[in-house]
Amino acid sequence: MLVRTRNPLNIGAAARVMSNFGALDLRLVTPYAKAFREAVSAVGAAPLLANAQEFDSVEHAVRDCSLVVGTTAIGNRELQHELVSLETAGKKISRKLATGQVAILFGSEKTGLSNRDLSHCHWLLRIPTRVEHRSMNLAQSVAIVIYELSRGAGNAVSGAKNKLSLAAARMETLNRINEALREALALSGYIHPRSAASAEEKLRRMLLRFDLRATDAEVLLGMLRKILWKLKSE
Amino acid sequence: MLVRTRNPLNIGAAARVMSNFGALDLRLVTPYAKAFREAVSAVGAAPLLANAQEFDSVEHAVRDCSLVVGTTAIGNRELQHELVSLETAGKKISRKLATGQVAILFGSEKTGLSNRDLSHCHWLLRIPTRVEHRSMNLAQSVAIVIYELSRGAGNAVSGAKNKLSLAAARMETLNRINEALREALALSGYIHPRSAASAEEKLRRMLLRFDLRATDAEVLLGMLRKILWKLKSE
Repeated sequence: MLVRTRNPLNIGAAARVMSNFGALDLRLVTPYAKAFREAVSAVGAAPLLANAQEFDSVEHAVRDCSLVVGTTAIGNRELQHELVSLETAGKKISRKLATGQVAILFGSEKTGLSNRDLSHCHWLLRIPTRVEHRSMNLAQSVAIVIYELSRGAGNAVSGAKNKLSLAAARMETLNRINEALREALALSGYIHPRSAASAEEKLRRMLLRFDLRATDAEVLLGMLRKILWKLKSE
Repeated sequence: MLVRTRNPLNIGAAARVMSNFGALDLRLVTPYAKAFREAVSAVGAAPLLANAQEFDSVEHAVRDCSLVVGTTAIGNRELQHELVSLETAGKKISRKLATGQVAILFGSEKTGLSNRDLSHCHWLLRIPTRVEHRSMNLAQSVAIVIYELSRGAGNAVSGAKNKLSLAAARMETLNRINEALREALALSGYIHPRSAASAEEKLRRMLLRFDLRATDAEVLLGMLRKILWKLKSE
């Protein structure tokens, strides 16, 4: 919920990141008329903006919500409210979302949320910026809060899927790489015949640290064999 | 690290949120000149922008880094890279920060990161947006990634201090290994002169997947140079 936003770019960007993360209900409280009209240009945000609702007061805008959270970058304003870190807030909000609607209020670029706005909030969340530079861009605050809310919601699928192609190299292949490399190093004088045994072990440890994929191991073996062939042919 | 950014508002907003969360080293790779000049207007971001460094290529910009992470909203592009969820990425990056510098690459607003940019990345992180609306605003992507990195950062960083011996290889060393290996492969006929350029990229991708430690990288470089010397001397 954006309160008294002035900059159309911020409304557009807030809408865009909400759409990115599937938070589709944008509400605007007394935005500057021009700002709202011009916001439609944000990439992919048009459908969300078309459904955005406009209200003349925070009170009206939060009517159907069961939790209202204000946002602030300021640490110790008046502290009439409980101040919750964003991480903790994410968990509290997720729990509440199971049973009702939650409104998150972002104030205007210049003045943030007024005391009157805050009076509608159950508690405040603080984004953990540096003490030396607390003032955040509005659209980026929205991005970070929305991201934290969606965090851990379930993107494990895409992560697991492309691990199929990451099968590790078999020890068998590693040993062949080790042999080829050792031979090449011996031929070029890097390894002295006397220390060949300890070299084998060192090389294997190193190759294991490389954590080779099966496909890369085959490529590497091919390279080494070609180099070896050249070394021998001369 | 912002690559080929066009919009001054995005550079300014990225700088601002970096400052908000204490990530103070901004690097720009071939930004549009006008975009860089105009970015100074972002609230509180001036000191950070004054220290921002400009580079003419990703390769030069990441030289002193030991981990290079690309960002993408796309789920299944080519998948030559491991794709890591932002949450997991946050942990991996925090660990690495204990022993070296980490670069996080954000591509241009229009086209994202090119394949050539990606060839400098160890792996990619994906921000978990909805499948239906993946395209994010650049400055908001930066905000979310920076926030995730700062989230619960304290314990991860301090816990990893005594892993100094595991410091990752710097990109600079990897590039030297790449060169030596390429030369050896060319001399032995594994690489045809015609395909030398694409070979460079492929080799770099492979070397990055090896996830070399600094010490192992030096050993490997020494080996390759010796082999190379032998190949040339005959």
